[in-house]
Amino acid sequence: MTERAVCVIGTGLIGGSLVRAADKAGRVVWGTSASEETAAQARADGFDVTTDADAALRRAAEADALVVLAVPLPALDGVLRRVDAVAPGCRLTDAVSVKVAVADAVARLAPRARYVGGHPMAGTAESGWSAGNGELFTDAAWVVAADDGVDLDVWADVAELAWACGARVVPAAADEHDIAVARVSHLPHLFAAVLASVGAAGDDDLALALAASSFADGTRVAGTRPELVLAMCEGNRDALLAAVDDALGRLGAMRGALASTGGLAATVRAGHEARLRWAAARNPRRVRVRRGRATPAELREIGRRGEAVVGWA
Amino acid sequence: MTERAVCVIGTGLIGGSLVRAADKAGRVVWGTSASEETAAQARADGFDVTTDADAALRRAAEADALVVLAVPLPALDGVLRRVDAVAPGCRLTDAVSVKVAVADAVARLAPRARYVGGHPMAGTAESGWSAGNGELFTDAAWVVAADDGVDLDVWADVAELAWACGARVVPAAADEHDIAVARVSHLPHLFAAVLASVGAAGDDDLALALAASSFADGTRVAGTRPELVLAMCEGNRDALLAAVDDALGRLGAMRGALASTGGLAATVRAGHEARLRWAAARNPRRVRVRRGRATPAELREIGRRGEAVVGWA
Repeated sequence: MTERAVCVIGTGLIGGSLVRAADKAGRVVWGTSASEETAAQARADGFDVTTDADAALRRAAEADALVVLAVPLPALDGVLRRVDAVAPGCRLTDAVSVKVAVADAVARLAPRARYVGGHPMAGTAESGWSAGNGELFTDAAWVVAADDGVDLDVWADVAELAWACGARVVPAAADEHDIAVARVSHLPHLFAAVLASVGAAGDDDLALALAASSFADGTRVAGTRPELVLAMCEGNRDALLAAVDDALGRLGAMRGALASTGGLAATVRAGHEARLRWAAARNPRRVRVRRGRATPAELREIGRRGEAVVGWA
Repeated sequence: MTERAVCVIGTGLIGGSLVRAADKAGRVVWGTSASEETAAQARADGFDVTTDADAALRRAAEADALVVLAVPLPALDGVLRRVDAVAPGCRLTDAVSVKVAVADAVARLAPRARYVGGHPMAGTAESGWSAGNGELFTDAAWVVAADDGVDLDVWADVAELAWACGARVVPAAADEHDIAVARVSHLPHLFAAVLASVGAAGDDDLALALAASSFADGTRVAGTRPELVLAMCEGNRDALLAAVDDALGRLGAMRGALASTGGLAATVRAGHEARLRWAAARNPRRVRVRRGRATPAELREIGRRGEAVVGWA
């Protein structure tokens, strides 16, 4: 495995965890933060983090490092303009939770970059450098985009970084990724928000006083900073609308059954079976592929089967 | 505090935890299970559990014990007929998750019982004796019904049992309880079921492969045995319908905003604020009341304010 250097733009929860994990894996890694306070905190923790993004990107260009964009979607355009100005042909990936919108922005603003989209499926309701930790990606799925025409050399760089951080790689087309995360990540955030609002909507404080673990778990991600939730959900509008409509259809059918026969068995049993399927998917089949030889189509099929790439054959 | 004996009918997760907690608190406690296997397991663990419900109820009548019904709603009628036959005037409470339906059943089938409804707000996605533990109720809210005309002596018995198990008492009218738990307990189960189904509904296994903590938490209670979820949700139909309609209204408004302006701020910010309100409610104001003197109306106001009774004044 190569030991490619890593430059992380944005050192919040995800970027900050990535700096720590890459460092722990023995990589040369440096990062940038827009916040003086965050950069100082990270340096105090012993990491190489600066507020000078241009300097970090210049260093990346010189070292042929892998640049990882770990900023929220609304901050992306500004960062991409700096990439194009300072490190135009760099190896580039990201950790943003939508993939089509990022690929479009890269094509528009940093078209010379050797970009391969990425998305580590890890997070907590906390945010910021101090919430990060070097184990955040351990055993997590890390999507590495595998659209036709992808740069397989950079794809390998990103996969190797994911493995170095303890994650498994799930290859996916950018649009298929966005549809999938709308269902399993963005919709859960909207459900959590609505559930929290319904729980707090009573005429008095009795309902919140009785809220126990089912409410606590069902609303946990509503504790996430709204700006982060809005950035990821609003950045995936079309796929999210389809997921919302699927959910509304199921809720409407459930409502009809409850009102007419009073029966909820179809809803509850289907949900239970789905949860068991998810539990089984927690331990996916691990596969290996030949470095630079597996085609994008072959890689995508691995992800569609729910399998994960854990190393080179 | 009196040391009233306790007879627990049904030793699944809740009843089994209650047997252990009451025993740990120094109470004389015995239980019954319809299952030979469960009773044998409980006895092997050192507890007084039999399959002979009639004998357990006779003993309760002789000892003037507090009888706690900890069976699922569909099993309640059969148990109440035995109560009326063997211990007709007993002190009676329950741990069933709806209160109006239980009160109606008691009035119909065991009208001589000195019944005060109860509902400890604790649980896990597991079930059965082996899933129970004597700490399940520690720091939990335990609703003790305080409708007009309630037997304040039995109310005190139930409150003292709740305190002995480490819980705090939230007084509530039966119908107000049902409306509250529809919002904060039953609706979360239906949301979890629908969310799990949407996540598993893709054409392939990619979405489940990418499901991480937001999906895991949002669907956790879909892992509960469907029979238990159906019993509690279907037993609270009217209140649940109102909660579902509230949720559908909010989801519809959110869907409209996403489709038109693409903006989700109203939904996400309201949910975030509601979650913060819930977090604040985790540490309610603790109050004390005079034993047998606080009126049902006074007790109910405590619950409506989100406060909890933790002992006698």
